[in-house]
Amino acid sequence: MTLEPLRNDLIPFLNPYLPRLETDSTRKQPFITLTYAQSLDSRISKGKGLRTTISHPETKTMTHYLRYHHDAILIGCGTALADDPGLNCKYAPDGQVLSAANSPRPVILDPHVKWKFKGSKMEQIFMSSGGKPPIVIVNRLPEPKDQEKHVTYLPMDVSPTSGKYGWKMIFEKLYMQFNLKSIMVEGGAVVINDLLATNTLVDSLIITIGAKYLGSQGVEASPWCGELALQDISWWKGTCDVVLCARPPSTAD
Amino acid sequence: MTLEPLRNDLIPFLNPYLPRLETDSTRKQPFITLTYAQSLDSRISKGKGLRTTISHPETKTMTHYLRYHHDAILIGCGTALADDPGLNCKYAPDGQVLSAANSPRPVILDPHVKWKFKGSKMEQIFMSSGGKPPIVIVNRLPEPKDQEKHVTYLPMDVSPTSGKYGWKMIFEKLYMQFNLKSIMVEGGAVVINDLLATNTLVDSLIITIGAKYLGSQGVEASPWCGELALQDISWWKGTCDVVLCARPPSTAD
Repeated sequence: MTLEPLRNDLIPFLNPYLPRLETDSTRKQPFITLTYAQSLDSRISKGKGLRTTISHPETKTMTHYLRYHHDAILIGCGTALADDPGLNCKYAPDGQVLSAANSPRPVILDPHVKWKFKGSKMEQIFMSSGGKPPIVIVNRLPEPKDQEKHVTYLPMDVSPTSGKYGWKMIFEKLYMQFNLKSIMVEGGAVVINDLLATNTLVDSLIITIGAKYLGSQGVEASPWCGELALQDISWWKGTCDVVLCARPPSTAD
Repeated sequence: MTLEPLRNDLIPFLNPYLPRLETDSTRKQPFITLTYAQSLDSRISKGKGLRTTISHPETKTMTHYLRYHHDAILIGCGTALADDPGLNCKYAPDGQVLSAANSPRPVILDPHVKWKFKGSKMEQIFMSSGGKPPIVIVNRLPEPKDQEKHVTYLPMDVSPTSGKYGWKMIFEKLYMQFNLKSIMVEGGAVVINDLLATNTLVDSLIITIGAKYLGSQGVEASPWCGELALQDISWWKGTCDVVLCARPPSTAD
């Protein structure tokens, strides 16, 4: 499927929230963008494992524009299993040819190795030179016989404290071992809600809101940490959706 | 507290969604506007009974502008008890004097007569000629000794089917008995979620979204009926919030 053209006014709107070239050499954390699309009632799908159209195709183009500006894209294994996403970048600036080099590195948070690269859309895209091979974060390295070709396993105890993911360690390792300086986190709900509760690691939030309800049985994005006021707030109006760009409160606040 | 001035661009934005003079004389239902403010994660408060600031003061002015354009304002008894709201209108067009005549008639949906007018902010406003006295919808008319002065009781079995409110009958009675031709429904969550599930009775939706999370423990607006795509969508950007105006799908859709 080809993308709709990028809406021109999205470029200056998104620009202040894109990964910045890091001038602080002591920083060992990648720039983290948390991005997702939700309904009015903050559902990212109408039910577990159900792909749900929430927003206008123009925001899909925006997602690919964002992927173009990030070194990696991280999702949870639930989303990988439910959506079988490609996670590549189908956007290129005018005059530039689409290339796997411009696609972000897929990172799957999959502690218990439930997702398989083989047979996935990601594998298909990689084999046809349309994207990069994934890094899979696992609790323990699989036995050699269970390791998949082209997959890089990153073993670490990702749930060190009371069931929450050890985001700081995850991001540090991705930065140090793979030189991934900017990571876009796309979901699903477990990842979003857990990362929001560790909001000091998030640099930018880019959220699309579609003008529909998905209902209380849907899968929701809402942090378990309680109130979280955002700052540097900016809204964009699309054909029928809005996009919010913002930053979490800084630790100094 | 005085209101901030009304943002000029709100007037043309809201205009298509305001109650229309009904030309269809066979229609015996009032024009219904459902309006509320929510966080990104569709919470209308951070906990049951907790008043929570969600949006910029400019949207409070918008609420009073909307009240100016409606004959009545309906809330559930939970909100009446938790917020002790005035429900009057503090907006008047330039050159016009504020008057109780321009305030909507408060309607409290209170089947078990839990809320008391006496001692409420609403009573205080009414006694100082700043607003109208309430209609209280109850399952059964209270004993004469329990009836409050200035309160009009409207007894009807409001929960005729499986615990859901009988909105059609409620609105019809308010229209026929009290000549209330336009009703603004402001909440709380029980009322919003139940009314959304009966969306064919709603004419306009006006929803403010603030750029903050309130967290999964908050009180949420999300219909139990499942997916509900809106139409005639229009967004307004405020200082830090957005407002959505839309209509539910018509029954013909």
